[in-house]
Amino acid sequence: MDFENDPAFPLHRRGKIEVRPTVRIRDGAGLALAYTPGVARVAQAIAAQPDLVYDYTWKANTVLVVTDGTAVLGLGDIGPRAALPVMEGKALLFKEFAGVDAVPVCLDVTDTQQVIDTIAHLAPAFGGINLEDISAPRCFEIEDGLQERVDIPVFHDDQHGTAIVVIAALESAARLTDRKFPGMRAVVSGAGAAGVAVSNMLLSAGLKDVCVCDSQGLLGPAREGLSGVKADLASRSNPRGLDGPIEAALEGADVFIGVSAGQVSERALSGMADDAIIFALANPTPEVDPAVAGKYAAVVATGRSDYPNQINNVLAFPGVFRGALDVRASRITSGMQMAAADALAELVGDVAAPDYIIPSVFDKRVGQHVSEAVAVAARAEGVARL
Amino acid sequence: MDFENDPAFPLHRRGKIEVRPTVRIRDGAGLALAYTPGVARVAQAIAAQPDLVYDYTWKANTVLVVTDGTAVLGLGDIGPRAALPVMEGKALLFKEFAGVDAVPVCLDVTDTQQVIDTIAHLAPAFGGINLEDISAPRCFEIEDGLQERVDIPVFHDDQHGTAIVVIAALESAARLTDRKFPGMRAVVSGAGAAGVAVSNMLLSAGLKDVCVCDSQGLLGPAREGLSGVKADLASRSNPRGLDGPIEAALEGADVFIGVSAGQVSERALSGMADDAIIFALANPTPEVDPAVAGKYAAVVATGRSDYPNQINNVLAFPGVFRGALDVRASRITSGMQMAAADALAELVGDVAAPDYIIPSVFDKRVGQHVSEAVAVAARAEGVARL
Repeated sequence: MDFENDPAFPLHRRGKIEVRPTVRIRDGAGLALAYTPGVARVAQAIAAQPDLVYDYTWKANTVLVVTDGTAVLGLGDIGPRAALPVMEGKALLFKEFAGVDAVPVCLDVTDTQQVIDTIAHLAPAFGGINLEDISAPRCFEIEDGLQERVDIPVFHDDQHGTAIVVIAALESAARLTDRKFPGMRAVVSGAGAAGVAVSNMLLSAGLKDVCVCDSQGLLGPAREGLSGVKADLASRSNPRGLDGPIEAALEGADVFIGVSAGQVSERALSGMADDAIIFALANPTPEVDPAVAGKYAAVVATGRSDYPNQINNVLAFPGVFRGALDVRASRITSGMQMAAADALAELVGDVAAPDYIIPSVFDKRVGQHVSEAVAVAARAEGVARL
Repeated sequence: MDFENDPAFPLHRRGKIEVRPTVRIRDGAGLALAYTPGVARVAQAIAAQPDLVYDYTWKANTVLVVTDGTAVLGLGDIGPRAALPVMEGKALLFKEFAGVDAVPVCLDVTDTQQVIDTIAHLAPAFGGINLEDISAPRCFEIEDGLQERVDIPVFHDDQHGTAIVVIAALESAARLTDRKFPGMRAVVSGAGAAGVAVSNMLLSAGLKDVCVCDSQGLLGPAREGLSGVKADLASRSNPRGLDGPIEAALEGADVFIGVSAGQVSERALSGMADDAIIFALANPTPEVDPAVAGKYAAVVATGRSDYPNQINNVLAFPGVFRGALDVRASRITSGMQMAAADALAELVGDVAAPDYIIPSVFDKRVGQHVSEAVAVAARAEGVARL
């Protein structure tokens, strides 16, 4: 660690966020309103009518950002303490990009049921729960189990945040290469949190031919011993029943989406359809060098900020939660996620270009545009309470 | 509820606190430091050397303010949602009075062991845990069980915050009435969180004759069926083995401390020693009318802001945690609590008067004076890590 020359360390000193009062206590009269005895009257009002907690506390604008430290960035299971600066960063982005108050919490427990129990017990004080950096396949069970227990939205950003931005970018790329979603053949490399969510969202978006590959090869009828989410995905993807390594699926494919650390050979990519679309999103090292990908693809995207078309979750999660909180949604449905993706693609619209398929993270329109679309979708899907 | 005319409601609208970034993200370079890839280097440093979490996150300045909603103010078990405005108020006071970042959490669980487990799992991201408004006797087990599990201070403010301020006020009152602690006879009405902590602190402070009374009468050798904390207190108090209602103990007593909702008759108080000290702290209705108490006592204190000598926890908890955080204490010992009480009494010192036995909550010296004393005591007791 280069504590002296790496500017990340001084920037992180004493953390990146703080809790601040929004009302001032100047005298005894102020204290008697904000604390006892005044606060007792507010507490009694909420006890009598629990929904008032949304009006008279910060719950309506507040998201719990919670991890168990098992899959932090690309670093793996580095534990809850090491995960804290990442969660603080997320909280910072929530406020900067959508005005959402976010509280970072890092759990000292990794047992799946105990993670669910612990987070469920925290729900009363929050308007939403953003799961973060929880390892697969535990993350699927935790998200589903938790959503069954609480009446506020649960959103695993590593899954759905990634999928929303990928689908948005793919909408632009399809438009540029004159493709329609149902006719595209897509290959997803990676069946962890992001890979599963991206694959599911591709299927929801109408793609008929999606193949998913994990470190053992393609998911499909020939794969034995699959269970849980992977077995489910195998049954709904790979309609031609392909078997073996990823190369089999890439032959003639329109789209490659890499969300794993695994490399893909130039030779495999060379067999893709003309004007292919290649999203090599592994960080910091993409599945294929973008320059090499450019030899075969009409559109290339990565997860890095130093190449064009950065697929960055910060385009999605602030606006998604802003929209969900604004209508007091009870969950974030796949329809709301699709609305967020469509909203992002709309912002690019007709000015899409091979090096501009997704808005910049500093595009000021993003947060509001996504949040409005998500709120509309929440109402349409019947999960809004406002 | 008078939502229109009670100013507490507009003041509480959308809550009383927010989370704010302390660093600004102006461009891609800033984002790359505060979030990926820069934050990954900080996370790796903490993974390699866990204590760095105190240097490069907000942990060192952050306290979890947590309740299960079972004993909120004087309102009882009104649940976690109704407790939230109270916890937010506490967080507001932590920041205003001591610069501490405090995060309010309200648990949707009341089983003692599950409360302990849940809070213990949250410890990595916090520098201290302030328990709040948890019913007795569960609060004793929760505090002790939790402190065994975590390496940061656990402090139940309803117990120790109250006790610290009571002892401080009693030091001034004793000075005014020319008494020494060991020779004083004290009667405590109430054996809940505050009553137990006050009684224990009186005993620690050297009083030889402390009698404690719950709703069934005096704790002592004649009481059957006592268990836990009450049995322990019975064995260490009431040296004359008194039995029956509180009147038996008040006869000739120097000090009455009421921390219950129960009333005490004028006749009982009339039997106290000359120049008695009466602290009638029940809120909003003191155990005895302060005007009536004044007929028998040289010094009277209440929990209310509209009488002199308000016993208010806000004099203690901000400075206690400030001091504990400043030296990264692993716990808040009884020595640290006594140091906080002594520091508060010192601020009154020679200018003590019957209507000035404790500093005003707006006395700007309080936070720093208490915190310095607590930090010194933490080092002396070997629980400081800085």
